[in-house]
Amino acid sequence: MSPKSAEFLKVSHSEMESLFYKILIQRGFSNDKARTCANIFTSNSLDGVYTHGVNRFPRFVNYIVEGHIDPMKEAVCKSSVGSIEQWDGQMGPGPVNALRCTDRAMEIAEAHGLGCVALGNTNHWMRGGTYGWRAAKKGFVFIGWTNTTANMPTWGAVNSKLGNNPLVISVPYQDDAIVLDMAMSQYSYGALEFYKLKNQQLPVPGGFTMDGSLTTDPDEILKSQRILPVGYWKGAGLSLLLDILATILSGGLSVSGISQQKAECNVSQVFIAIDIRKLDNFSSIASAIKQIIDDYHQSIPEKTSRVVFPGERVLSIRAENTSQGIPVLKAVWEEIQSMQI
Amino acid sequence: MSPKSAEFLKVSHSEMESLFYKILIQRGFSNDKARTCANIFTSNSLDGVYTHGVNRFPRFVNYIVEGHIDPMKEAVCKSSVGSIEQWDGQMGPGPVNALRCTDRAMEIAEAHGLGCVALGNTNHWMRGGTYGWRAAKKGFVFIGWTNTTANMPTWGAVNSKLGNNPLVISVPYQDDAIVLDMAMSQYSYGALEFYKLKNQQLPVPGGFTMDGSLTTDPDEILKSQRILPVGYWKGAGLSLLLDILATILSGGLSVSGISQQKAECNVSQVFIAIDIRKLDNFSSIASAIKQIIDDYHQSIPEKTSRVVFPGERVLSIRAENTSQGIPVLKAVWEEIQSMQI
Repeated sequence: MSPKSAEFLKVSHSEMESLFYKILIQRGFSNDKARTCANIFTSNSLDGVYTHGVNRFPRFVNYIVEGHIDPMKEAVCKSSVGSIEQWDGQMGPGPVNALRCTDRAMEIAEAHGLGCVALGNTNHWMRGGTYGWRAAKKGFVFIGWTNTTANMPTWGAVNSKLGNNPLVISVPYQDDAIVLDMAMSQYSYGALEFYKLKNQQLPVPGGFTMDGSLTTDPDEILKSQRILPVGYWKGAGLSLLLDILATILSGGLSVSGISQQKAECNVSQVFIAIDIRKLDNFSSIASAIKQIIDDYHQSIPEKTSRVVFPGERVLSIRAENTSQGIPVLKAVWEEIQSMQI
Repeated sequence: MSPKSAEFLKVSHSEMESLFYKILIQRGFSNDKARTCANIFTSNSLDGVYTHGVNRFPRFVNYIVEGHIDPMKEAVCKSSVGSIEQWDGQMGPGPVNALRCTDRAMEIAEAHGLGCVALGNTNHWMRGGTYGWRAAKKGFVFIGWTNTTANMPTWGAVNSKLGNNPLVISVPYQDDAIVLDMAMSQYSYGALEFYKLKNQQLPVPGGFTMDGSLTTDPDEILKSQRILPVGYWKGAGLSLLLDILATILSGGLSVSGISQQKAECNVSQVFIAIDIRKLDNFSSIASAIKQIIDDYHQSIPEKTSRVVFPGERVLSIRAENTSQGIPVLKAVWEEIQSMQI
C-alpha cells in the first residue's frame, strides 16, 4: 500500500480525544491520567507528529495490555537536594510522568530560579516537544532529554550501542514558543519506513549499506540497521553523554540497561526549567528573542522558501488540522476503534 | 609550506608556560591572570588542541594590543536568583572569566545541588573542554556553551546567520573525565585550512561549493564560506537555541550582536555544574558510568581500531606531549618569541 493509494480519513480532534479517553478508561486509567494521555496523543497528532500521536496509540495500548505500562502508577519524588529532585516513574504511563516532572521542574524553578527533575523507571514520553511547548507556553526556558533502547551504532562501529536519545530545548516566543526537538539519529526508523514506502531516496545520507558505505537509500539502511548519528562522531558523542547524564542524575537505567528489558521501558529522563521572570533582564528578553529571530529570518534562502526556526511549521499544521480535521490512515483508525471493549 | 616540510620544534610545557606568562605580564596582566592564561594555553597545547593553544596565542596577544581584551578587567556578579547568577565579563580575558564562572557554578552547586552562571560581555574562552575538564576533575557534572560571531549559514540558506556555538558536556570518569566538546559546524575553518594545506579531502562532507553542492573539498568550502551544520537542519536548530539561551540568560549579546562588533568579542556563555555528591545514588554513580563505558567499548569496530569516547584520546596525547615536549610550528614559536618586549 503506497501513501498515494492509502486511504486517509479526517478525524476531528475532539472525536479523536474522546475515543482515546474511552479506550484508556477501559484499560484501567484514572480519569485524570486518561484525560492527560488522550490530550497528549491528540495534540501530537494535531501538530502533525503522527508517529508519536495517533499512529503510536495502538502500541501504547498494547504496552498496557502486556504489562510494560502500569496505569495505576505514577511518578513520585524519591529525594531532593536544592534545585534538583530525583523521581521514580514506577513504570507508569510515560506522558503522564513526563508532564508531571515538567510541571515540577517549573515549580522548583519558581523557588530557585532553575529546577531540575531527573526521572528514572519511566516509559516512553512520546513526543519530547510536548514538554518543551508546555514549559515555554508558561514562560519558562526548558531543556530536557530522554534515553532510549540501543538503536544506533556509534561512529565507526557496526552494532548499536547508543540510543537516539532525543533532546528538547524551548523558549517562549511571542504568544507561542520556539521548540527544538531532535533525536541524535539523522533519521528515525519511522522516517526510513516512510521514504521506503514512497519509494524515495533520503534528502541526505541517513545510514549505511551492508558494505559500510553511506547511503540515501532507506531500504539499504533498514537492512543494515546502521542509522547515522547526526554529524557522525559528534552526534554519537552527544548521545553517549546524554545517556550518562540521564542515568546518573535519575539513578535509573542506561541505554545498555534498557536494551536488556523485554520492551523499551524503564527509561531515564531529565527535565530542566528556568524561570526567566526572575532574571534582572526579564523585561528585555522577549525583544532579545525577537531580534534574534528577525535576524535569522533574514537568511537568504538557497531556493525560494524562507528559512524557518525549530517548531515554526507546527503552528500552520496545527491550525490546518484543527479546522479541517486530523488526517489518519483508515487502517490505523479502524484498529484504534476496534480497541474499544 | 606543506605540513610535511614544515619545521616543528618540541617545546617543553614548562618553557611554553613561562614564555606565555612573561609576555602576558608585559601586556599588563596581573600575576594571577597571567598565570591562569599561560596555564590554559599551555594545557590546551599539551592536550593536542593546538588551534586553541599555542597557535592561537599570537591572536590573543593582538586582541589585547588592539583593545578587544582588557587585561585589567574581570568577570563580576551582576545579579543572583537562587541557583542562577548573571555575570558581566567586562571584556576581560576570556579564559580567566570562563574559569571563574566555572568555579562559581560549582560553588553554587555545592549549596543548591545545581549551579548556573550566565556570563555576558566576555571574550573567547579558547577551548571549551578546558572548563569541562576542570569541573569533572573536581567531581561535578558540567554543561556549558558559548555563542560566537556568525560563521555558519542555517540549513537551506547561503549567508551566515548562525554561530558554531560550541557545547561542552562532561562527567567524572575514574581518575579523569569524559569530555564532549563539540562545535555546531561539522568542521571548523581551522580544520578546513589544515586539510587544504595537506591537499586532502575531508572524511565526510563539510560544506558547500559555490554552486550549492555538498562537498568534501576544503578549498571549495573556503571559497563559498558555507560550512555545514552538524546533522544539517538539526545542528542548525541546536545552534540557534544555544544562542538564544546564552543571550537571554546572560543579558549579553547574541550571535547577531557579536557580528556587529569590530572583532569577535562581547560573547555570551553559560556554565552549569551539578554536584553529584549530593545525590542519593552518589555511591553507585562511578560504577554506573563505568558500566556504560564498558558496554560502549564493546562496540564492534568497522575497521581495526577500537571506538573511543569523547576525550579518550586526549589522555595519550597529553602523556606523550608531557614526556616528549609539545610539537610547535617553528614559525609560530618564533612569532611568539618575538612578542617579548
